[in-house]
Amino acid sequence: MEFINPVQEHLQDVEDRMRSRFNGSASGLISILDQLICLGGKRLRPTVTLLMGKMLGADLDHLLDLAAAIEMLHTATLIHDDLVDDATLRRGEKTINATLPPVASVLAGDLVFAIAANLAAATKSVRVMEIFAETLATMVNGEITNLFDNKPGNDREMYFQWIYAKTASMFELATGAAAILSKADVEAISTARQFGREIGMAFQIVDDVLDFTGSPADIGKPVGNDLRQGVFTLPTLHYLETHPEDPDLRSVINRNGHDEESLNRLIAAINASDAVNQSMHEAERFVQSGLETLAVFPDILERQALEELTRFILSRTK
Amino acid sequence: MEFINPVQEHLQDVEDRMRSRFNGSASGLISILDQLICLGGKRLRPTVTLLMGKMLGADLDHLLDLAAAIEMLHTATLIHDDLVDDATLRRGEKTINATLPPVASVLAGDLVFAIAANLAAATKSVRVMEIFAETLATMVNGEITNLFDNKPGNDREMYFQWIYAKTASMFELATGAAAILSKADVEAISTARQFGREIGMAFQIVDDVLDFTGSPADIGKPVGNDLRQGVFTLPTLHYLETHPEDPDLRSVINRNGHDEESLNRLIAAINASDAVNQSMHEAERFVQSGLETLAVFPDILERQALEELTRFILSRTK
Repeated sequence: MEFINPVQEHLQDVEDRMRSRFNGSASGLISILDQLICLGGKRLRPTVTLLMGKMLGADLDHLLDLAAAIEMLHTATLIHDDLVDDATLRRGEKTINATLPPVASVLAGDLVFAIAANLAAATKSVRVMEIFAETLATMVNGEITNLFDNKPGNDREMYFQWIYAKTASMFELATGAAAILSKADVEAISTARQFGREIGMAFQIVDDVLDFTGSPADIGKPVGNDLRQGVFTLPTLHYLETHPEDPDLRSVINRNGHDEESLNRLIAAINASDAVNQSMHEAERFVQSGLETLAVFPDILERQALEELTRFILSRTK
Repeated sequence: MEFINPVQEHLQDVEDRMRSRFNGSASGLISILDQLICLGGKRLRPTVTLLMGKMLGADLDHLLDLAAAIEMLHTATLIHDDLVDDATLRRGEKTINATLPPVASVLAGDLVFAIAANLAAATKSVRVMEIFAETLATMVNGEITNLFDNKPGNDREMYFQWIYAKTASMFELATGAAAILSKADVEAISTARQFGREIGMAFQIVDDVLDFTGSPADIGKPVGNDLRQGVFTLPTLHYLETHPEDPDLRSVINRNGHDEESLNRLIAAINASDAVNQSMHEAERFVQSGLETLAVFPDILERQALEELTRFILSRTK
């Protein structure tokens, strides 16, 4: 992950800004949140934010606040999503949902949202705050649609809308807001947003593929976790198109109880089918578009790092 | 409630702005939220916002967005609070928490937060968005402290901190942000905030008194609801100071099971004691301060309405 190098020195700053906002809050819940943030993850979103902002010459102080705001927004949505999906493991660690009563997840997520909004306001940019709020609405609307209106067996178009709302919209926010802080012109801001959207789509597709192909130790969740939760991601949708009559698939669609055996057979069948490759091809297309989109920017260190990060999305195993 | 007159014509505008933000969201949950907003309530927060802004000459378009943002923020916190407190009735109607699974309350609250943030951003004021985010953090921190650190039998100082976080901070936001949009000077903004804080404190104390003295039909909740939930508000704290050895009170503090009989006796005893009067005196002190704070502003129609609203806080029965 050499693409981190140009912004490595700033990532600790970003973490410090995230954690400094908990000051003054005295509760066991806060120390749990502190650990959660310390634990981190890949810090891909702040890295993209910092690289884009530095490439375009953003004010560093505001850029650090933005990167922290975006990672906090991401963290807040994870906390509420884990509650909504009743997820017990994330990054190989127990979730707040697994260890504390539901109210703790509600309030912890709300607090992290509030801190994200504080950090976004610290950028002093009305436009950044506007797209920040719009992105939050997009994400929550996506989650509501998915949970209340979606039915298993939906088509790929709905899948793409859903992963845009869930993941790509936040990458789009990260790159677009970084460009706004750089005083880039309207066209450059639009290009930056497009790049974020493309890598976000690729990132989520690979995530959904890894849910089938990854090792549980690497991804910190059981194999086929999405399907076990009744969620049909791209590999399943491809498999559905080519194997519409697979009895195990029908059984899962019709939710004939919790038939563990047919679920396990189905996960193995999807893994062995061409559905995984087809899905990876779609991720590759988004990666290719992302690289082409980037090409309009000057060929400096940060752009090269963004290119490397874009290619990394396809090669990652966790 | 004649104090509404100077802004009556704008309240429908505010409601329209709140509801317009649901456009594009298609889900059963949205229609429930739409009803919730339609149902309304007293609209005290938008009324205060509009009166303060009009008194100080704020831009009307931005002021309407602010008033809508504040009512949405209030609504969002109610939705999550009802989930956290497992409340089933509010304003005499069933809550979302009572009718839908917990995830619906989580996501509905998140969506309303997002819309509130969108509306706050529509004011185009960085300073408004900053105090908006700070207020959200204050409110959630207050709720976390209350839920995770608080013990029954705490003192009045903690109670005042708690009602500031829960209620007065949002009135302070309403009046302060309205003043900011009016391009008032620093001193006037600070005075406006102080007024909001004072009426917010009075409002919550009266709310806590009405929880004991109000008719269930008027307030839409059973009598002594707070105490039934293990929450010690001002009347209980005053009663505790004068009757520290009341066996019913000890029983509730020690949470000897759910002893309905001693709970009902205690509620009746608090009602019959001087604790209610003592609490109302404290509310009156905040109202008096609020009126004195207002006196520095020009004696025009809107100030008179704010004075009337301030006095109304003491006389309301629901």
